[in-house]
Amino acid sequence: MAAPGPVHEALAALPLVDHHCHGAVTASLSFAQFESLITEGAAWPGVSPFDSPVGVAVRRHCAPLLDLPRHAPPADYLARRSALGWREVNRRFLTAAGAEMFCVDTGFAPHPLTTPAELAAAAGAAACEIVRLEQLAEAVAARGVDAGEYPAVLRNAAEEAVRRPGVVAVKSIAAYRTGFALDPERPADAEVTEAARHWLARGGRLTDPVLVRHLLWTAVDLGLPLQLHTGFGDADVTLHRADPALLTDWLHRTAGTIPVLLLHCWPYHRQAAYLATVFEQVYLDVGLALHYTGPSRCRAVLEEALEITPFRKLLYSSDAYGVAEFHHLGALCFRRGLADLLQDRVDADELSLADALRIAAWTGRDNARRLYGPPVSDPARDSSGRPTRKV
Amino acid sequence: MAAPGPVHEALAALPLVDHHCHGAVTASLSFAQFESLITEGAAWPGVSPFDSPVGVAVRRHCAPLLDLPRHAPPADYLARRSALGWREVNRRFLTAAGAEMFCVDTGFAPHPLTTPAELAAAAGAAACEIVRLEQLAEAVAARGVDAGEYPAVLRNAAEEAVRRPGVVAVKSIAAYRTGFALDPERPADAEVTEAARHWLARGGRLTDPVLVRHLLWTAVDLGLPLQLHTGFGDADVTLHRADPALLTDWLHRTAGTIPVLLLHCWPYHRQAAYLATVFEQVYLDVGLALHYTGPSRCRAVLEEALEITPFRKLLYSSDAYGVAEFHHLGALCFRRGLADLLQDRVDADELSLADALRIAAWTGRDNARRLYGPPVSDPARDSSGRPTRKV
Amino acid sequence: MAAPGPVHEALAALPLVDHHCHGAVTASLSFAQFESLITEGAAWPGVSPFDSPVGVAVRRHCAPLLDLPRHAPPADYLARRSALGWREVNRRFLTAAGAEMFCVDTGFAPHPLTTPAELAAAAGAAACEIVRLEQLAEAVAARGVDAGEYPAVLRNAAEEAVRRPGVVAVKSIAAYRTGFALDPERPADAEVTEAARHWLARGGRLTDPVLVRHLLWTAVDLGLPLQLHTGFGDADVTLHRADPALLTDWLHRTAGTIPVLLLHCWPYHRQAAYLATVFEQVYLDVGLALHYTGPSRCRAVLEEALEITPFRKLLYSSDAYGVAEFHHLGALCFRRGLADLLQDRVDADELSLADALRIAAWTGRDNARRLYGPPVSDPARDSSGRPTRKV
Repeated sequence: MAAPGPVHEALAALPLVDHHCHGAVTASLSFAQFESLITEGAAWPGVSPFDSPVGVAVRRHCAPLLDLPRHAPPADYLARRSALGWREVNRRFLTAAGAEMFCVDTGFAPHPLTTPAELAAAAGAAACEIVRLEQLAEAVAARGVDAGEYPAVLRNAAEEAVRRPGVVAVKSIAAYRTGFALDPERPADAEVTEAARHWLARGGRLTDPVLVRHLLWTAVDLGLPLQLHTGFGDADVTLHRADPALLTDWLHRTAGTIPVLLLHCWPYHRQAAYLATVFEQVYLDVGLALHYTGPSRCRAVLEEALEITPFRKLLYSSDAYGVAEFHHLGALCFRRGLADLLQDRVDADELSLADALRIAAWTGRDNARRLYGPPVSDPARDSSGRPTRKV
Repeated sequence: MAAPGPVHEALAALPLVDHHCHGAVTASLSFAQFESLITEGAAWPGVSPFDSPVGVAVRRHCAPLLDLPRHAPPADYLARRSALGWREVNRRFLTAAGAEMFCVDTGFAPHPLTTPAELAAAAGAAACEIVRLEQLAEAVAARGVDAGEYPAVLRNAAEEAVRRPGVVAVKSIAAYRTGFALDPERPADAEVTEAARHWLARGGRLTDPVLVRHLLWTAVDLGLPLQLHTGFGDADVTLHRADPALLTDWLHRTAGTIPVLLLHCWPYHRQAAYLATVFEQVYLDVGLALHYTGPSRCRAVLEEALEITPFRKLLYSSDAYGVAEFHHLGALCFRRGLADLLQDRVDADELSLADALRIAAWTGRDNARRLYGPPVSDPARDSSGRPTRKV
Repeated sequence: MAAPGPVHEALAALPLVDHHCHGAVTASLSFAQFESLITEGAAWPGVSPFDSPVGVAVRRHCAPLLDLPRHAPPADYLARRSALGWREVNRRFLTAAGAEMFCVDTGFAPHPLTTPAELAAAAGAAACEIVRLEQLAEAVAARGVDAGEYPAVLRNAAEEAVRRPGVVAVKSIAAYRTGFALDPERPADAEVTEAARHWLARGGRLTDPVLVRHLLWTAVDLGLPLQLHTGFGDADVTLHRADPALLTDWLHRTAGTIPVLLLHCWPYHRQAAYLATVFEQVYLDVGLALHYTGPSRCRAVLEEALEITPFRKLLYSSDAYGVAEFHHLGALCFRRGLADLLQDRVDADELSLADALRIAAWTGRDNARRLYGPPVSDPARDSSGRPTRKV
């Protein structure tokens, strides 16, 4: 670990933009429920999620915020968490995250979660919203639609969704549904209609490659930044199909249109860094990997992610879901990992302090502000034409 | 390197379970023979295997056990090795490994090798056996079998093989034969018979994708843990086809059946770590890579392998073959790499000492015991129903 | 960073062989032109290539050679660069590189560039030439040829090209044109003729998989070392198709013929290291990645590249193109990264000093000399039969 210095101070004081996260659960959690929320796997007999890098990080860095000693035992942790109540727990961790804005993906909610406004209120911050396209398409199907009208109805629903106050971007989980080895061309209307006919008859999740592809092109038409899950996730992803390098042909075809934000990326963060280096529209973060690898490894992951990446192309996100511990841990890992690597470079005279401070502010806040607009309460769009409303 | 501390002491004293290794050669080795055994390639004109990370490690860490100075020249090393004789050399290195049990893959023996019992005796430890399925199938073919009877005969041979005292697991080298981009479904009997008909007529190694797949499903039926070669190996492997992420669909279909142990994994150890994180039945090690990357890099490889991995999912193996130096070096690299990374975390107050000691004991010994049973001389099965006999 | 020691001194004094680079621009560069030459992407609004690891490295390590303070602002840097003039700038950086020989790929020249002889003269070194096969084939097509005669005419042109004084190797950018997932077999003449018929009728760049494959086999017939772009490059490459592991089947078929030099490799340098470990004819470098990752990360990349690699299999290259800053930075990063990692191992008594010095000399100079011959002014071939002429 680098000796703390002015970069650490600057990052500690910097209000972050957490450009991709989810809500926190608005209910008390049992031990088993909590365990199931701190792993991308599950709690299996004899294999507690507490016995993993992220579990160690929770006990080390979250326990003190619940007035417990560092490394408190899991049972103590859950007991104290219950005693404080979920509102107070959420408030403590969300405040500790030190974010000025949370961009909240509202399209995944198997648990009762804070709305963006509730998340913002608990944190004393602003929030904006990310619309998940697969969820939108599935809602269109659930409401009932003729296959022939699917393209138009989906388009209308999408345009309506992104017109809602506070929506700043869309997101696709194509990585989960089909992977990225997709035909890079825009599908013809007839192709979409035919695929929709099969899907609507069959029902279930949207996994048809033509329709998933169609959603990516719908994002292009909407004109908002597109967030893409890549790499690490739960067992529902096939990792190698979520390598963002597979998007290359599609990125060539959509150059000059919308910003594309590669989320998570681990263990393909070097591949993502390459794409962010050679494509103007591509950005990346290492959200999710920050808290799952934890304070002892997040610097290593960030260093790999930043190895060749232009400093205007890395963003911060936590990808926290469910437990507000992760909104806090993501921010802590980002701040510490980035401060350690930048301060070391300053100390070795490889980087000027002024440059280090600019890089910290860019990656922690300003790159996101540039893409999504500043966190303001005025519902008007900013000069870039992008919606920037506070929820 | 971390300052040595109590974690180093604990790991130095911990009897390891080397859950995947091979025998040591029971013959005197010429210089050229020794060189050919310390590389996954070969000794080429002007490119001695001694001039590689593992060669440097042998001269540094094995020479002293043969009463030579550190960094002894290769010629001195081989002269001393010959003077001591293979029995004494094996005894010294196998004892130095400090293992309580070796799980020995007996299905690959181009050289005269110690049996599991001989290995155990030389080490003053226990040994158990791993049955290699491809070798078993090829033995079935060599004995002569009608294609129509192949499934039943193979099944009987496999059941008989794993009933032998001391057998605790099976192993597949599907990675070498076909790679993992296999149809994940269980092949129909007619499909297997048809493929067997072609193979038995053609002869040679088992490389038919249907039959290789059939072996993986045979492992499921046998109900024992399945060890899978993944990643790094000799020139016979096609590296990218041995990426364990390619197993994802098969792992979904076999969830709830047998433990799957991903061996070696390098350079796909992060992919393996992901699988071990999201699939209950998946475990990993970084055997082979420990001694081939050597004491200067094994910590880095272990840190990547442990980046997100639940601590009950990493095991120790050497994958040593042929020279007992590797049984020792694997253990040395594991102990040092793990102790350095855990002690550093303890020193930084990122991990409690008690937790670090638990993690050391789990990964070095207890996770393997849990899967294969404790090393006992009683041939009865343990309470888990798994065979745990000392050979 | 390791404390400087004798390995640093030795590497500082070692004349390097830069076994793959390009010329430097022979013209004054505007700010925008310079920016476009220090990125594999482009200069985009708000995203200056100076704000990236390589930009930071230029301001830190190149500014002092132009008599500017460390970390000089980009505008000052360009002003000083213009004031000195391109001849003086090139002379300063090329001299600072401390190379005894540059092997220059002359097949890519969208800018006016130094010839190998001019580069050598400015550096006070020798130079030799690498013939790019795709450029050669496109020149054959441009001069006009019947499809039926294409194989013979190409073969003649290639033989003539490599007979030119100073040519020591050929290069293919198959990675850019098709990727490496090619049929590994030598294409039949009729197949080549048929593919040539289509290409010659259509015109444009050579991207036909049969013809690209044919070029790789032409290299085998020529008998000279073959340099292959792998991994990292500009937006024209599809990264995952440039993974050198995809070459495995072709490497099996061409074993025993020509040396194959895997260039760049990042982020697949571990895959390249595996190939160099198990195939006698395979070598690797991490050129391009050295200066793009910069002095703060080149050690990490080199350590991964050397993790298992025999020490006679790693070479040095800068892959510098256009700006002589990169000929210097590549050398600086290689020297520093390698010295840091070797000195640390010597200090930890993991490596003897004598071994460290041999590894430094081998990888920085001698491995390349062994493949391409020593830098001599005599146009005669050396004892290996390979051309070794100074241009």
